[in-house]
Amino acid sequence: MTGRLYVVGTGPGNPDQMTPEAARAVADSAEFFGYFPYIDRLSLRPDQKKVASDNREELDRAQAALKRAAEGVNVCVVSGGDPGVFAMAAAVCEAIDAGPAEWRGIDLVVVPGVTAMLAVAARIGAPLGHDFCAISLSDNLKPWAVIEKRLRLVAEAGLVMAFYNPISKARPWQLGKAFEILREVLPAHTPVVFGRAAGRPDERMLVMPLGEADAERADMATCVIIGSPQTRVIAREGRQDLVYTPRFLQAEAT
Amino acid sequence: MTGRLYVVGTGPGNPDQMTPEAARAVADSAEFFGYFPYIDRLSLRPDQKKVASDNREELDRAQAALKRAAEGVNVCVVSGGDPGVFAMAAAVCEAIDAGPAEWRGIDLVVVPGVTAMLAVAARIGAPLGHDFCAISLSDNLKPWAVIEKRLRLVAEAGLVMAFYNPISKARPWQLGKAFEILREVLPAHTPVVFGRAAGRPDERMLVMPLGEADAERADMATCVIIGSPQTRVIAREGRQDLVYTPRFLQAEAT
Repeated sequence: MTGRLYVVGTGPGNPDQMTPEAARAVADSAEFFGYFPYIDRLSLRPDQKKVASDNREELDRAQAALKRAAEGVNVCVVSGGDPGVFAMAAAVCEAIDAGPAEWRGIDLVVVPGVTAMLAVAARIGAPLGHDFCAISLSDNLKPWAVIEKRLRLVAEAGLVMAFYNPISKARPWQLGKAFEILREVLPAHTPVVFGRAAGRPDERMLVMPLGEADAERADMATCVIIGSPQTRVIAREGRQDLVYTPRFLQAEAT
Repeated sequence: MTGRLYVVGTGPGNPDQMTPEAARAVADSAEFFGYFPYIDRLSLRPDQKKVASDNREELDRAQAALKRAAEGVNVCVVSGGDPGVFAMAAAVCEAIDAGPAEWRGIDLVVVPGVTAMLAVAARIGAPLGHDFCAISLSDNLKPWAVIEKRLRLVAEAGLVMAFYNPISKARPWQLGKAFEILREVLPAHTPVVFGRAAGRPDERMLVMPLGEADAERADMATCVIIGSPQTRVIAREGRQDLVYTPRFLQAEAT
């Protein structure tokens, strides 16, 4: 009898944004696999064991969790946000796909969560109110040429874009380059949202036009949202400006 | 002193997938504006008033809610899923943008939720594990020519696609036409997920190759996910097949 393997999303980091379903999965698990900062968001019982690891060892972590589940232990693989968006659910599936047949018999339960772009969008208005895409700017995951091609095509398609993994010490230039590419395709007034740590005490929301967008305003905890040509900004006295994309697109806008 | 206007997402419909933050917003509200089925998901107190309305009157509903908030009432505009994804948050912003100046002074709080594509993805594995987009197939919202252009461009970009509003009595042919268009660009084996009522008692998950994808399998409660050329299916004996998109994209795949 194998154990159950939960893959849980904690949400953006505010405990109020983690679902009861995720809390129940945590309560039902004996061992926790994940990146320290995500596991540390959970208040575990003394009998629950943390098996933390570096954030870059996702496949190893997935395999370790599957091995324990195959041994009959209920395990929980922890992601921030939603585990299915640039996170652990895909790593666990990759491990099952390449792993021993018995791993396919493990009771896998992926528990969805509020992913960063939804939390950022909520804090700033409704920038994702019409068609949009989520793109990782990490060229550890794919060649930069693919990212550049995708940026040009989705900009031409008129989709709002949410950038995950926009910048890091190891990837300092990619976001600035993405802004350069998009300035060739999109109007300079296109709103850009820098949404940092949405819903957390250290939250910081910043809106600037694409023409002035500065990659230095982003860090690893930032989700960057690029509007479409239809995206609008509503100025509010004494309050954060609202950014939204209308639900309707008129023919002349095509 | 104006009231507060919450725009809340109930999640996919399973109460366990609604966040504590959303529950708190509901508890703090006196009047509720939304489509019956969404409001009926909430267990309201006798002193809380439902102002239900038809699902096609989103702007009227947003204006009615803003008017009450301006009068000092705490109101809650209710969406299924996440209110920022093809839902009420954009309608409320549109109403504020076009409305009286005092509406900009209303304390607007958008509460994010688990949107349908994340709930469906979690139930089937990790189809959204790499770059993806969300597109509404409703040509009430934009001309069909725009939808067709977007489908071709995002398919060329290699993004996984989640279709919202795939089909309805009033829009019977759009999903079938979308499949036809995508068959011209994507391999016939590309996995297509029909995710109906994810997380609810009447949930139904179905996976078929794009070459055989049949629009009749979808209804208004279905979110359709189209894989990318990298998306894989893992067969599992006695269990639902898993569908996932690997985190890494090799150069030769470009």
